[in-house]
Amino acid sequence: MALIVMKFGGTSVGDVERIKNVAKRVKGEVDAGNKVAVVVSAMSGVTNQLVDYVTSITPLYDTREYDVVVSSGEQVTSGLLALALQDLGVSARSWLGWQLPVKTDKAHGKARILDIDCSDALKCMDAGEVVVMPGFQGVTADHRVTTLGRGGSDTSAVALAAALKADRCDIYTDVDGVYTTDPRIVSKAKKLHRITFEEMLEMASLGAKVLQTRSVEVAMKHNVRLQVRSSFSDEPGTMVVNEDEIVEQELISGIAYSRDEAKITLVGVADQPGVAARIFGPLADASINVDMIVQNISEDGKSTDMTFTVSKTDMTRAVDVVKKHAAEFGYQELKSDPNVVKVSVVGVGMRSHAGIAQRMFQALADKGINIQVISTSEIKVSVLIAEEYTELALRALHTAYGLDAEG
Amino acid sequence: MALIVMKFGGTSVGDVERIKNVAKRVKGEVDAGNKVAVVVSAMSGVTNQLVDYVTSITPLYDTREYDVVVSSGEQVTSGLLALALQDLGVSARSWLGWQLPVKTDKAHGKARILDIDCSDALKCMDAGEVVVMPGFQGVTADHRVTTLGRGGSDTSAVALAAALKADRCDIYTDVDGVYTTDPRIVSKAKKLHRITFEEMLEMASLGAKVLQTRSVEVAMKHNVRLQVRSSFSDEPGTMVVNEDEIVEQELISGIAYSRDEAKITLVGVADQPGVAARIFGPLADASINVDMIVQNISEDGKSTDMTFTVSKTDMTRAVDVVKKHAAEFGYQELKSDPNVVKVSVVGVGMRSHAGIAQRMFQALADKGINIQVISTSEIKVSVLIAEEYTELALRALHTAYGLDAEG
Repeated sequence: MALIVMKFGGTSVGDVERIKNVAKRVKGEVDAGNKVAVVVSAMSGVTNQLVDYVTSITPLYDTREYDVVVSSGEQVTSGLLALALQDLGVSARSWLGWQLPVKTDKAHGKARILDIDCSDALKCMDAGEVVVMPGFQGVTADHRVTTLGRGGSDTSAVALAAALKADRCDIYTDVDGVYTTDPRIVSKAKKLHRITFEEMLEMASLGAKVLQTRSVEVAMKHNVRLQVRSSFSDEPGTMVVNEDEIVEQELISGIAYSRDEAKITLVGVADQPGVAARIFGPLADASINVDMIVQNISEDGKSTDMTFTVSKTDMTRAVDVVKKHAAEFGYQELKSDPNVVKVSVVGVGMRSHAGIAQRMFQALADKGINIQVISTSEIKVSVLIAEEYTELALRALHTAYGLDAEG
Repeated sequence: MALIVMKFGGTSVGDVERIKNVAKRVKGEVDAGNKVAVVVSAMSGVTNQLVDYVTSITPLYDTREYDVVVSSGEQVTSGLLALALQDLGVSARSWLGWQLPVKTDKAHGKARILDIDCSDALKCMDAGEVVVMPGFQGVTADHRVTTLGRGGSDTSAVALAAALKADRCDIYTDVDGVYTTDPRIVSKAKKLHRITFEEMLEMASLGAKVLQTRSVEVAMKHNVRLQVRSSFSDEPGTMVVNEDEIVEQELISGIAYSRDEAKITLVGVADQPGVAARIFGPLADASINVDMIVQNISEDGKSTDMTFTVSKTDMTRAVDVVKKHAAEFGYQELKSDPNVVKVSVVGVGMRSHAGIAQRMFQALADKGINIQVISTSEIKVSVLIAEEYTELALRALHTAYGLDAEG
């Protein structure tokens, strides 16, 4: 007998028939003798509708009231799933964020879970009842509703699994696992049977949309065994596990890409101590996240070029901020380019192997793809290239690292 | 400066533009120096959609989970109205049923409010903040969500007004007040400036849909000054007040009708002590409400005819229950007829005047309308007639009691 947390995304609970199917799947785990807690998203489309209501009332909204509105979608599906389970003869009840409670900080709209009090829920599970919890929502110490940010239901599920000391946390979604790269672009992409937390974290933050980044962080911290699998098939999915559980590690696990990048270059910036702080301080103050940063070697020792990337939606604002503070650091020219993509190869194997980055650069050079910016970490190499080369680069790299499926 | 509770129904908050209009109306009261609490329904159509979800999952549902699902509609509008008020520069926040809290009993799906704790909300109102409360919802002592039954938001508003000791409770709706009868049927119907609690209670329970019956009971008990008015015009509406506030009382205030009636007749029932209990006991056990009851005088002293009415939706079930228990009381024939209407004249004036009922019977006789069942109370006379005579009867009675508007 195991204690399992099952999480179903918006597509999996998209209508009444699908909610009934989810109930059957949950019943399967109960019939197999497991204790089960379920975390559900809102029906697909509902959260967007609620956000639309809020922004059409006022673009500058009080995030506390935003949370009251947008948290309602998950409330509905949790009640409906409890009813669908009861209809199959499975004892079940919903536990809203404030009922358990799921305690969070006060960062409304993107709150962090501090603690989930499972004592009452555990008693019900011991008595054979399925616990159904709406994802995405929590409550502050002063009893106000919070939400965890888009995709937050993944984090709800992992945090609940940690609090319940669950044997496994299964994330049911509309894809059947984590792939070596996007199978819509690279037909030879393979489903991974296992991937390490560190790799999954890089993949998620580099653009693979299968799991919310924060949920992987929480899983890694609390050592929650995560599985990503399809709610529409019985195939096993991808297990996200500790590195020591993987005996024979591939050099590279996957290739991620993100089109949500824009490049800004300041030509002829004065090459003085403190200039980077004067450029990036105002951007940080404006809550604009800067990702990759490259400073070219100055030829004359007096000026340099500074290139950095921001999220595509922040580009116009970032350019404004830089122009407004131009007097503080000076530059000759400002260029911006939204037509770029960040491609990253990820794998814990690269820690112990030389030449991983070199193989990437060579593969791209062979296809005539120019690399604009490079950034590396212990387990990933990212490059910025022109967006039009996305598919070509992904396929070339997938082959170069020997990831192509056979046949 | 007054303390006012304003309640807006589903049509009044039917979309974002209407919610913004409601915010303007609330701001008007705030700008006039009043302290304001607002109670909102769900957007029109939303509660029906949520009920549909529940019943399409299972027709026999756990009312505790039903309440979790259907209470979400009011949560959305309360958050949106708070945002719309803030957008106009009015300080406001939403207070959900569990946040105030609105304490109810455990009769999920049709809970009764036991107490509303306004201490925190009052502090905010004293500091100039508008309190926005979702109607229809509450919470039990063991922290489960409840709803108050359809139309329950009226009761939420009146109960909040009582708890806040408000000077007035304004119910904004899609009609501009209480009329002497349905103006869609009788073009000469007049808007009443004032009506007593007792009359409003009879009108509501006899089919006038303008206020939930329970809300009038609560208003009467706590002496809450109620006003029914339109959210789409600035005209004053109808005040529901204590009898002693009305100096010159009309004999009859209004004529109500209900098509939600069905007649069942048992012919040749044994005329013995206890037979009524044996007939109506099983109906009560099946939660079927019996309204009018008439037992004819038995001619032979051995058998009698028993006629009673139930809600149209309960007719088939009621017939089943009676047939199942037939052996316990016996009858020769069972007749049922859904094509009936109950027409009632209501007025506190009839307590001190004779001949009110007689005038009704005469007016109907003059039009050749046969009366099937009669029932009376201190301030109303109801008759059951064939449904096809509804409009004819209403117009005849409206004229007979001198209620027709001039010109």
